[in-house]
Parts: sequence; structure tokens; C-alpha cells
Amino acid sequence: MEKNQIALSIDDLPTKWYNIAPDLPEPLPAPKEPESGPSRMEFLGKTMTHECLKQEKATERWTPIPEEIRSLYIQAGRPRPLYRAKRLEKHLRLRNVRLYYKREDLSPTGSHKVNTALAQAYYAAKEGKTTLVTETGAGQWGSALSYAATVMGLDCVVFWVRAVYNWKTDRRTLMKLMGAEVHSSPSKETNFGRSLLAKNSNHQGSLGIAVSEGLEYAETHDGSVYCLGSVLNHVLIHQSIIGLESIKQFELVDDSPDLIIGCLGGGSNFGGIALPFAGEVLQKKRKCEFLAAQSEAAPNLVKGEYRYDFGDVAEHTPLLKMFTLGHKTEMVPIKADGLRYHAAAPLISALRHHNLVKAIAYPANEKAIFEAARIFLQTEGWLIAPESSYAVRAGIDEALKAEKAGKEKVICMNISGHGFLDLQAYKEKLSME
Amino acid sequence: MEKNQIALSIDDLPTKWYNIAPDLPEPLPAPKEPESGPSRMEFLGKTMTHECLKQEKATERWTPIPEEIRSLYIQAGRPRPLYRAKRLEKHLRLRNVRLYYKREDLSPTGSHKVNTALAQAYYAAKEGKTTLVTETGAGQWGSALSYAATVMGLDCVVFWVRAVYNWKTDRRTLMKLMGAEVHSSPSKETNFGRSLLAKNSNHQGSLGIAVSEGLEYAETHDGSVYCLGSVLNHVLIHQSIIGLESIKQFELVDDSPDLIIGCLGGGSNFGGIALPFAGEVLQKKRKCEFLAAQSEAAPNLVKGEYRYDFGDVAEHTPLLKMFTLGHKTEMVPIKADGLRYHAAAPLISALRHHNLVKAIAYPANEKAIFEAARIFLQTEGWLIAPESSYAVRAGIDEALKAEKAGKEKVICMNISGHGFLDLQAYKEKLSME
Repeated sequence: MEKNQIALSIDDLPTKWYNIAPDLPEPLPAPKEPESGPSRMEFLGKTMTHECLKQEKATERWTPIPEEIRSLYIQAGRPRPLYRAKRLEKHLRLRNVRLYYKREDLSPTGSHKVNTALAQAYYAAKEGKTTLVTETGAGQWGSALSYAATVMGLDCVVFWVRAVYNWKTDRRTLMKLMGAEVHSSPSKETNFGRSLLAKNSNHQGSLGIAVSEGLEYAETHDGSVYCLGSVLNHVLIHQSIIGLESIKQFELVDDSPDLIIGCLGGGSNFGGIALPFAGEVLQKKRKCEFLAAQSEAAPNLVKGEYRYDFGDVAEHTPLLKMFTLGHKTEMVPIKADGLRYHAAAPLISALRHHNLVKAIAYPANEKAIFEAARIFLQTEGWLIAPESSYAVRAGIDEALKAEKAGKEKVICMNISGHGFLDLQAYKEKLSME
Repeated sequence: MEKNQIALSIDDLPTKWYNIAPDLPEPLPAPKEPESGPSRMEFLGKTMTHECLKQEKATERWTPIPEEIRSLYIQAGRPRPLYRAKRLEKHLRLRNVRLYYKREDLSPTGSHKVNTALAQAYYAAKEGKTTLVTETGAGQWGSALSYAATVMGLDCVVFWVRAVYNWKTDRRTLMKLMGAEVHSSPSKETNFGRSLLAKNSNHQGSLGIAVSEGLEYAETHDGSVYCLGSVLNHVLIHQSIIGLESIKQFELVDDSPDLIIGCLGGGSNFGGIALPFAGEVLQKKRKCEFLAAQSEAAPNLVKGEYRYDFGDVAEHTPLLKMFTLGHKTEMVPIKADGLRYHAAAPLISALRHHNLVKAIAYPANEKAIFEAARIFLQTEGWLIAPESSYAVRAGIDEALKAEKAGKEKVICMNISGHGFLDLQAYKEKLSME
């Protein structure tokens, strides 16, 4: 009997997160203060939790996952299954290539973002904080943090770029249902927002403005902490749960991936699956390649420069050494909004710098991306997020390439989220009635 | 450490479906031909698969699940977890009552309907059929059958009541993405549809018309079979997988439910979880009560009469002995559209007749229903379907009643589906901005 689902028992949920920093070929370049303006490090120190700041600088390979966070992971449905994509293999007529995929789409809010949201909410509560504050662009991060806040009994305040807030009504309803206060940014909640609205009451906002509003709110409201959903080291440490589970699941079926593929915007989804495997490559315990699937709208690993840059448009963060397109770069809109970010996480950029990570960028019209998602739905049966569809597109392309070359290959794709709130995008991109 | 998720290993997926017919206190009243018109039995015999017809009349307690269907269940994510609702218990301050819930919302199309859709698609393919035909009202059944068809490599034709087809654009996109041919009914595909459109080109359709179109299509197209999503015995047999898994899961935690609650329209979701437990009650192996949560829009078990009636408005089915409001009854619209059905499945009606099933009907304004769903989301973290919210409402009410009386009680609720395609309904019913 064909059993394509590879489940991990609850008792096998990992007990430690993995940090790749100590395994890098050379130390991770430290964050820097910019030449002008106030100290960004001090500012971050005031608005983040102590534990996340500590993890940000961690040089230990392993961080024990507190039992309470492991309970929250189990409540949120972890461990999540790995699947052997036998049906997709058959459709592609693969004889030499085996395909697998990891299912982060089973998350309560529909994306992998909950893995770090729960950890950050737990630490905030432990440090006596009452309110989680953040910005959101596409809305996945805002939903995940709203979820984490409600299950931890905390308040949540989300500043959401007005242009997106206005049309993503379902995702807005979801955040509000979970009890979050969601503000269309620029808002009347902050001095900065009010100053912009005074000049233009119909200001459409930007991610940079939303970040600024969130940071101002967190700084001026007691009990508040600012939470970040990608790029930073502590976020990637939390996301390592994805890859750590996958390693155990491959052992269960006595197989091992030759290539791991994830979509990449800032890097939390890609890093989540790739870094635990990459660590074992660096420790000479396994051989494996890594491919980041990107959009030409934001090809930071493909066309970016490896240099110090701000993490945000508004220049609130310290300077981080990253593959970057420049923090002021304008990016064309795409449906996979979560991939529109100017730079790749420092940890992933370091791996790229050492040629351990490859990257590919697909055209911004996304036609081929949504076609891949349709093939995946019609074979494997799961409706996946536009972002995840980049990983599946690259997985199909790489599988066909290896097959043509007659090479045996095992490929694992990370499915970052589900597509139930993206059906309009499917309809539009596939020109459906 | 708190582990609220109770997972069943893949190797423990049940190998047989359960049929309650032989355990009923007296034989199930047989279907009857109506006094006038053609033979409905012959007609059904021509349009359904042989295996489903055979199961419809089965008197054996157990039906082996073919290995291929078990593989399809595993592909679709089964076994599904049972959860101990510790967070909801804490919110309700329960000290004597333990709450559990079964998670059919993890299905690929978002409802339990796939359990029978996969079985029916498998039998159709085995009998050499190429096309699955059906009608759909709310859209859950049409989605599930589209899914089953695509994973079995079959065609699927869905006739969808125009009034719903026109506004549920996301669910329509989902069915079409899975490759189904979806027709707004009345359609130009059938004589019946064309005759109605000739009189009124803007005819809004009805479920009865959609059934008639589907049956005409199946009868006149070689290789087609008509598939039914609820009410009939074979559907309830397939859905028994829900309760059979749950029995094993309660054993894993050494607990046992005193009360099982499911929402009920036609009865496939309620029957799915309840009948395997009810069978053990009838065999004197356990004590347990059963509560069907309904809407006042269609309170068939609460206010219906136990008598022979048609299963459909258009009088295509044989007469079945059921608790019915009358097959021509008009029902007010509600958001939990899957609960709008005039009669309860014969097997469940028989149990009701013998006082083994209780029922409650909630006001059609649904305010209290969506409030319960919001409480569930904010405590347990899962966004559930409006239909499932009836079970949660009743679960909360029964828990508080038992708690007030100081009675120890174990309650299990069935979550029939997720609510990611119902956020508009949440927004409207909870008067959110």
C-alpha cells in the first residue's frame, strides 16, 4: 500500500532549535551602526524582548525549546507531515528523481510564520509584556502574530499598509477575529501617522511607514514589544523546527535529499527548512545542495550585492551584511507578496557568499508559477500559497532537468502556506472565468 | 508538558468501515417506490455505481476499505487528529467537564465530504466510468467531488445552483482549478436546463433543478455516474472513518466520551462521528449520548415527522423513511448552508426514532453560532466552518450546563470543516468593520 504521508509522532517533536552561526565557514559579520543618526542597536534593545535579542547574538549551535513553546507547537498542529510526491512524480514521468514536500500550509493561519510568532509571544509574556506590536505587508505575518497573541492571552497591534489593508478584507477579518487591533497605516495612532495624514488624508502608506508607526507605538506604550517576522537571526533559529523535523522524517523512510528548495523573500521560510540540513553539510555529515526560488521583482540573491544595508526602508534597523538590492529599491507588485523584500537574511547571505546556496528568479508575470501550483493541486491535491508555488515551480524544473540527464536525485520542496485566501490571485493569473 | 493533540499513527488507520444497520433495534425501513411515475430504484440503479448501490443495501456490520482508498485517505491527510480542548475548557472555567474535538477541517477541500468522495471516485474508476456528475448547493460537496475526480484522474461535472454560483467565486475557482466542469444551473447542458432558460434566461435555479440536470446528464452521457454527498447509507458508511479513528484516539488517552455532538443537515458529518460510537452503545459495549446541532431554518430532527418522503425536491429518489419537514419545504437562507436540508438520513432518523439521538435547533440569525466560533478561534486557534460552529455552540452550552450541575462529563465535538472561505460570513454575522 502506498503511504505518501510521512508523519512524525508527537513525542519526536524536536526539543532544540538549531543555529547555523557557529557552523559558518567564517564568523557572521556583526551588525553595524550607520554613520549618522541615533543608535539603532539601543533602539532595538528597547523595543524587542531580551530573549530574542540574546538569541540574535547567539553563537551556540543549539537552543533548548521551552516546554511551553513545544506545547504551543503541538497545539498548532506540529509536527507537520513530510510527503513523498509520488503523484506529481508520476505526472512528470520521473523514473530517476524522487520528490518530497514539507507541509507548513497546515498552520492555523496558513503559513510557517506561526513558528516564530509563538516563540516571540511566549518570551514577551514571560518578560511581563502585554502587547505585541508589528507591521505587515502581505498580511501573513500580521495574521500569525495575531494568532500567537490570542493563544498567549496578549494584545496585538498591527499596522498594515493602507493599499493592502483596503483590499485584503478576508485577511483583515481573520486578524480582527483573533482579537488584534488592526490599523490602516498611516494611522491616527502615532505622531508620524498623524503628520502624514495631515498632509494627505488619503495617503496609501508603505511598509517603511508601517514599520515606523509600529516602532513609535511600541516605544511609547508601556508593556509593548516590537516583533519581527523574518530576516533576523532569532527568527531563523525558531524556523529551524521545519528542517529539524524534516531530517527525522527522511530518516524514517531511509532517504536523504540531494537538493532542498524553498521560496525566498527575506528568508525565514527558506532558512527554516534549509539551515538544519546546511549545518550538517558544513559539519561534513551529509551532502546536499540548496536552491532559493525568487521573483524577478525582488531577486536579492540573484542580482543583489553583498554589502551592509538597512533592513527596512525607514532606516530604523542597524546595518546588516546582506545580499541586497538597496533598501530604497521599488519593487513591482506580484501576487506572491511575501517574496517582495529587498535583501536576504544575513545568515542566508553568508551561505550564498560561500557558494552554499544557489538562487533562481522567475518572471514577475507569475504565469509559470501559478501553472505549477495548478499541477500540484491536480496531482497532490493541495491548494498552496503563491509564495510556495515558486518552490514547486523550481522543484518541477529541477526534477525534469535531472531526469533528462538520467541522474538519480532526491528533491525536497518546502510548502510555506496554503492558498485558500489567494483564490482571486489564481483566478486572475490563470485567466479563469 | 501539555500535549493537546492526540494523533493516530498512519499504521493505525482503520481497515474497515462500519455500518450500523445490523445493530439497529429493528430493521431499517426499506426504500419504497412512490405511487406514481417511473421506477426510482431502477433509475438510481442506472446512474450510480454498483458498489455504492450494494453498500446501500448492506446488512453486514463491516466493509473492508480497499487498500487503494486507504492510500487516498493517507494522501488526503488521514488519520486526522483528535484534540483535547484544554484551552477552551480553561476559558469556560470547566472543572468537571472535559472537551474534545475531531479535526475534519484539515481536509484538502476544507470539509469531511472528501471521505465519501474518494470512495465513490475509486469505485467509479474501478467500474470503468470516466466522469463523476453531481449537483452542489453550498459548494462543499462539489469541491470534494472535484478533488476526488482529479486525484483519481477522472472528469467531473458539477451543476451548481445559479444563485450561489454567482457569488461564491472563490469556491468556483477552486473547483475549476481542480479541473471540474462547473455549470451554473439551469444550464444549456441539458434539455431540462434549456427548457427553463427558454422561459427565463435569468433563472436563479434551485437544488432540485440542479439534481435534475445532473441526473439527466449522467443518464445521457456514457461513462458517467451520479454521486451523492449525504443522506444515503453508503455515504454514512464511508464517513464512519471519522468515528472509528476517534474511538482509537480516546483509547490512546484512556478516556471515553459521554456525549458526542455534530452539526446535522442531511447527516453525513454527524453520522460519521456518531454511528461507530452508537453501534457500541447498541452492542452494550459503552454508554454515550448523541446530540445533533441544527438550525431553525431546517430543524428536521427537532420538528420533522418520521415518515416516507423523497430525498430531493424534484422527486427523483425513491421514498425513504426519515424525519422530514417535507421535501417541498422552503428554508430561509443561513450562512451554514450545508445544514439546509429538509430531512435527516434514514439511519440517523431510525436512531432518533428509538430515542438514541437528541437534537437542538439554534435561531436562524446565527449570532450565537458565530460568537461560539470566535471563542473557539481565540482559545483553540482554529478558524472553523459556520456548520461546525453549531457543534461548538452546542458543546459549549452542554459543558456549561453539566458544570453548573456539578456533573463530570466528557464531550466530543466534530469539526466538519474550516472557515477560510467563509470569512465574509464571519464579518457580516459579527458586525465587524
